[in-house]
Order: sequence, then structure tokens, then C-alpha cells
Amino acid sequence: MNANDPNRAGALEALAGRARQAAIRAAALSTETKNAALAAVAQALLDRQQEIVAANRQDVRQAERDRISPVLLKRLNFDAGKLQTAVEGVRSLIALADPVGRTLRCMELEPGLELYQVTCPIGVLGIVFESRPDALVQISTLALKSGNAVLLKGGAEAARTNRILAEVIDTAAIRAGIPAGWLVLLETREDVRAMLTLDRGIDLIIPRGSNAFVRYIMDNTRIPVLGHAEGVCHVYVDRDADLEMAVRIAYDAKCQYPAVCNAAETLVVDAPAAEAFLPRIQAEYDRAGVELRGDQATRAIIACQEANEQDWRLEYNDLILSIRIVGGVDAAIDHINAYGSHHTDAIVTRNARTARRFLARVDSAGVFWNCSTRFSDGYRYGLGAEVGIATGKLHARGPVGLEGLVSTKWLLLGRGQTVAEFAGPNARQFTHRALEKHYEP
Amino acid sequence: MNANDPNRAGALEALAGRARQAAIRAAALSTETKNAALAAVAQALLDRQQEIVAANRQDVRQAERDRISPVLLKRLNFDAGKLQTAVEGVRSLIALADPVGRTLRCMELEPGLELYQVTCPIGVLGIVFESRPDALVQISTLALKSGNAVLLKGGAEAARTNRILAEVIDTAAIRAGIPAGWLVLLETREDVRAMLTLDRGIDLIIPRGSNAFVRYIMDNTRIPVLGHAEGVCHVYVDRDADLEMAVRIAYDAKCQYPAVCNAAETLVVDAPAAEAFLPRIQAEYDRAGVELRGDQATRAIIACQEANEQDWRLEYNDLILSIRIVGGVDAAIDHINAYGSHHTDAIVTRNARTARRFLARVDSAGVFWNCSTRFSDGYRYGLGAEVGIATGKLHARGPVGLEGLVSTKWLLLGRGQTVAEFAGPNARQFTHRALEKHYEP
Repeated sequence: MNANDPNRAGALEALAGRARQAAIRAAALSTETKNAALAAVAQALLDRQQEIVAANRQDVRQAERDRISPVLLKRLNFDAGKLQTAVEGVRSLIALADPVGRTLRCMELEPGLELYQVTCPIGVLGIVFESRPDALVQISTLALKSGNAVLLKGGAEAARTNRILAEVIDTAAIRAGIPAGWLVLLETREDVRAMLTLDRGIDLIIPRGSNAFVRYIMDNTRIPVLGHAEGVCHVYVDRDADLEMAVRIAYDAKCQYPAVCNAAETLVVDAPAAEAFLPRIQAEYDRAGVELRGDQATRAIIACQEANEQDWRLEYNDLILSIRIVGGVDAAIDHINAYGSHHTDAIVTRNARTARRFLARVDSAGVFWNCSTRFSDGYRYGLGAEVGIATGKLHARGPVGLEGLVSTKWLLLGRGQTVAEFAGPNARQFTHRALEKHYEP
Repeated sequence: MNANDPNRAGALEALAGRARQAAIRAAALSTETKNAALAAVAQALLDRQQEIVAANRQDVRQAERDRISPVLLKRLNFDAGKLQTAVEGVRSLIALADPVGRTLRCMELEPGLELYQVTCPIGVLGIVFESRPDALVQISTLALKSGNAVLLKGGAEAARTNRILAEVIDTAAIRAGIPAGWLVLLETREDVRAMLTLDRGIDLIIPRGSNAFVRYIMDNTRIPVLGHAEGVCHVYVDRDADLEMAVRIAYDAKCQYPAVCNAAETLVVDAPAAEAFLPRIQAEYDRAGVELRGDQATRAIIACQEANEQDWRLEYNDLILSIRIVGGVDAAIDHINAYGSHHTDAIVTRNARTARRFLARVDSAGVFWNCSTRFSDGYRYGLGAEVGIATGKLHARGPVGLEGLVSTKWLLLGRGQTVAEFAGPNARQFTHRALEKHYEP
């Protein structure tokens, strides 16, 4: 799309309309066609490796001239090795079950009147992600497998890489039978702003990137958004905890990879365990260089910075941890529900009753007993490809796999039945008998 | 809540906070406690029948003085018979399976590290409905059965009836073990406006009422909304239709109950069938007093009003029907996807291939073959109690039963595992073995 187009919003609406038409036809594609298209996409990426890597080198050189940070530069890189990994990701999608066309239930309303609830694609997805070109490959092929059309916007610094990747994937998919118009690459922020207003044209927005970025998207559209802005995760060390286990879990949850959303930000410690536990975990955290911020009770036991009310809501994404001492599991539950982000929270205890109470009452996408919050992830859960992690409570919650990209429809197959026959004094009766049948398209 | 309270928004936020606390505890209630509470509610409604009916008589008398329409007056009425029906509805909920605590999947990540995806309540619901006091009984008990807390706002003309019903239901439920604060009755429009701003306090809004009312709610909140604003349903009569069947279905879909969302508003007729079909259906519609509005091609075959572009998008909710002639099933699909409201659409044909094409490509919550659109309803589908009909594609689509009021959480039960053990050169491997186990709270 031309960045100087004065009718950008209108042009984008037209592209979304074309994507809708493609989505309608993609909903009817067979699993075989979709898998053949994925194989063709994988092959095309390999066949055109030189062009792709060359385009990426141009992006990288430009980024170096623009002095972007080493971290971003590393994420921007898409060399032959990265491409090989991306191709393996596409091929692994072929093995996954088709999320579309599954019969969730079948009900006989009367003999000859059968109701099927069947999964179907959502329709048109709008996906916005930052820098990594790998994300374009992953997201577009997840959309393909789930029969959805997709409007994609990647990071501006990866523009050349994204352009060639989108072209290669789109062309190979269309040749293999995917309806033209299913993939639209957006290139400007104005396009994203215009997309966020298309609440009739786009069914779901999935933002992937920084907290601030996701929050911006959520605050600026009426289209449903699947994702999470913050990951304020907790480890609660109960009075009945095995303290050696508590030290290992609290250490892993903070230090194994502090920059991610499922890392712990606050340690909640039951008062009777605090004196024995805090000095032991502090020794470990000191070795890893973790900055501790404690409440008054914590600071009466170990020396550390002072935590203020704001700290309980902060996602540090860094080697910083806040610590609060509470009086029992209910106070811990209250703290987590009040200050957390409903992402993932863990309890360490040998007391099954306490653990069950925590599991039932902590209102988060993931609630763990005696293991690290870092397990909260689609790959570790065994879900296959992960679309993202959702902390909202509707549609999908926690790590979202392919099944987060489908909706359902109700198909009713009759022989001319009318509702009038089921009303009034001589009404026929519904049988409402569950059947073990699957809808055959 | 005092209508003159200057701190209304703050007071409402406090009530929503209290509802959240109640919801956290309600999530852990056993099925037995919830069913006992439903039985207690049913009994309390019968015990206090006199008070309830007397309050309703006052509302009715006031409404008569205010000269509200006879239709609204009829819906407002809540006499002993209506109360008996409402009580039967509450009792029927007891027999339904608890939607909370179902294990949707269980996965072994390694021996001794088990993941359960379990259904849980959504949390705090905001439900706004018009006039009928029966709705208050139905909605509050659906919330109770699904472990949710609920903020309720009914029609102003039913204020006295709603007040006593809410008090009776709340008191009986709390005595039976439901946490206090689970039910909040709002009484003013200002309360509703304030509620729509509480996007951290309320998880889901369900509006029940007129199209304009639902549209207003959808346009004025960032809280997810479950519902439908319009029901523009279609019957498509294909060239391969049994015309006698087509007449019966088209008649039923329009005339059996024209004021509801699943009644047909537009008849789409395949050109080769038009000359034989249109005069026959016109004769039937004439007897029922249906006003027909046709496109040019229709008016070349039968005499009727002219349909304009607007008609294709109108929900008449009345004995009015628009008719359009198209060239084949694909044109019918295009018309329905472009102008419909994605509620329920039916095809009449003897051609299975044409029907399968229509079922796959019409992008609606319900897509029917050889039966009336009027079957689109939770009771007829055999879902038990119906919360409403959703035309959005996320979370729930079509008639929504109790399962539309639950979310899921992921519970991970370990023995001290950390992610570090599954990373690096000596990483332990995940087994990712599906287990046939159910989580026991």
C-alpha cells in the first residue's frame, strides 16, 4: 500500500473486504489442500532463500546505520539458520490436527432433524507484531492452517524482509489453492490505525510485542483483542512449604529467564516461613544479582530495598523482585487477585488442602502447585504452535494454540420441518437425543 | 443505591469490588451447595409469593397510570402463574450439569508434573435487561449455578417487582451458603452508565432487549459484550428446491412469530425457481397479511412494493418481508454474507452438493438446510436454559447455555520442578502424554 495514498482508510477497507471474500472460501478448504499449501510454502521459502537472506541483510545494514540496540538487531536477523528453523516450524504445522470442521456435538431434535455444532475459522485476523521476521512466517502459516485470512503488520526495521517473506508465502499458497487475498501485508503505522477502526471488517486483533504496545492496541479498538499486556506473576511460599523446594522454584521463576511474561515479579511469603526462608533465598538471589524490594516485615528479616505500593503492580522484566510477607494462604490469594495480572501464579506447600484452596481461588490463567511459573507456555504445555498467551477470560485463556483461531457454527439438517409443527396443542415433541455423529462436509 | 448519591461511580465500584470477592469464593463452591441454594431460592419465591405479586400489582398500576403500551404492560405482569413458571425454571437448573470444574484436558508434562485445563466461572457479570421480571429470576439463578457474581439492571417500570425478587433470591441464596455480595441490583440508568466504565471490575456484559438498546451497550463499553444487536435472517430457495417444502419453510420463518430475532426478513430466490415459487408463496403470505417488498426481477413476476438497498439490512420484526432474485447459490451466499447479521440463514434444496456449499460458506451462527430459521433457539437446540444468542465469533456463538458463562484455567501440579531442568545440554524431555484424568478439587 502506498504510504502517500490519500484514501488509505478506504484502500485498507477494500483489502479487508477482499480478505473477507478469501476467508469465506478458505473456510471450505479441505485439510489436504491446506497441508499441501503449507508444504509448498516451506519449499518456496527454501527455494528463495538467497533473495530472502539478501533482503534481510539490507534491513540489518540499515538498522546498523540507524544505530538500533543490539537486542533489536539480534531479533531482526534472519539468516539461513533462522530460515531453516522457520521452515521446520511450517512443516510441523502439517502434522497438527486441522482445528476446522471438528464436530463438538451432535443432537437429534427429532428423527430427521439433526443439529451439529462444528468448528469453523474466525474469518479475518489482524495481527501486529514487532521486529522478528520469524513471526511473519509463523503467524501467516497458523492463519493458513486454521482457514483464516490475515492482515499483518511487522516492525518497520524489517520492512524488506517482511515484504519478500509475505510475497513468497502468499504466492506459494495461492498456487497451491488458497484463495487470493488471504494475506495482506501492511507497512505503515497509519495502516494499523486504520485497521483498528474496521470493526466490521476484522474479527480479531492479536498484538505481539511490548506491554505498552499491546496496551495501546487494546485501548484503541473495538475489535476483540486476544493477548496480554502484563505478566505480574507470583510465587507464594506457604508455612507448610518444603523450603528447599521453595528456594529452587522461587529462584527458577525469577532467574531462569527474567525478561519474559511468565517470570515471577513478586514473592509472597507466609509469615511463619519467613525467618527460615528469606535468608536462604536471598543468598541464592545475591549470587544471581537480583535486586530485592521488601515490605517492612521482610526488611525486619533481611536487608533489602523498600517496596512501595506501586511495586506490587510492576512487571520488572528484569533481575528485580518484590517481597511481601502475609498471614496465611487467604491473604496471599487476596494479594495476588488484587495486584496480579491474572497470568500465572504458583504456591509451594506440602499441604494439599491449602494448595487446593489456592488453585480454586486464585483467579489467573495458570495456577500452579509446587512448580515454577516459567512452565506457563504453549510449547511446554504440549499445545504445538502457540499464537500467544491470553489473560482475558473470554474465548481463550492462557497459552493459545490453533484452537484459539477458530469459532463454531450450528448446522441444522432437516426434511422440511417448521416450528409451527412443534407449537400449540398438537405439538410434536423434541427428542433431544445426543448422537455420536460427525458432520461430513 | 441512592439515586442522589454524588459518589455513585465510586459506590458502584465498591459494590463491584465486593461482587468480585464473592465471585472468588463462589468459584470454589461445590455443586451440592449451589443446587441446595437453587432449591432454597425456588422455595423462598413460593413462600413470599403474596409480597411479590403485590409489588408487581403496584408496578402494573403505576404503568397503567403512565399509559405504557399494552405489549409492555403484558411483559411487566408477574402474577402467581408467571411466578410458578419462574420457579419451575429455577428447579430445572438443578438438574443441569455443573458447568464449573469440568476437566477439558489433562496432559502429563513428565511423570509427576500434570497439567489440567479446567472450567471455572467468568467472575463478575453485568446483565442489563428490559421490563420482564421473569428475566431477573432466570439470569440471577443462571449466574448462581455457574458460580458467577452478577450486577443486574432491569426495566424502571418493574422497579418494585425487581426489588423484592432480588431481595428474596439474594437472602435465600446467602442463607444456603452463597457468598454475600454475589447479587447486586442496580436501579438507575446512571448506574448502568457507571457500570459500563468498570472494565477492570466487570468481566462480561450481557444486554437483553431491543436492537437499539443492545447496540447502545456495545458502543459504550470496553468490557466484552455477549449478545446480538440484529437478527436479519434469510431463507434461500434454490433452483433444486422442493417448492412445496420451500413454501412451508418460508411461511413458517416469517409468520410463525414475526417479532423475534430468528424470524426471516429476506427471501432470496434462485432465478430458475422464481416464476413457479413466488406466486405460490405470495398466496400464503397474503392470507397472513405479510407486506412484500421485492427487487425489480421479483416485481416482474408478482405485484408488490419496491425494495431498496436499505431493505436488505432491515430487521422488520413484523409482517414485512423483502425478496431478492439471484442467479444461483454463490450469489445467494454473497448476498447473505454482505447484508445479513450472521444470525441464522436457511437453504431449501434437494441438491446435497449445493446445500453443503451453502453450509460451508454462509458465515452465520446458524446455517440450516431444509428447515425453518425459527429453530435457532437454546430450548429447541436442547441446551437447557439459554443466556441469550450471540452473533459474535469469539467465546460463544449462537444460542448460549450455561457453558457460555464459564472460562477455563490451567492447573499445573508438580513436585518441585523448575524450567532450568528442561533447558540446556542435559535437559530433561517433556513426555506430553494425554491422560484420561479429571481434576479433583
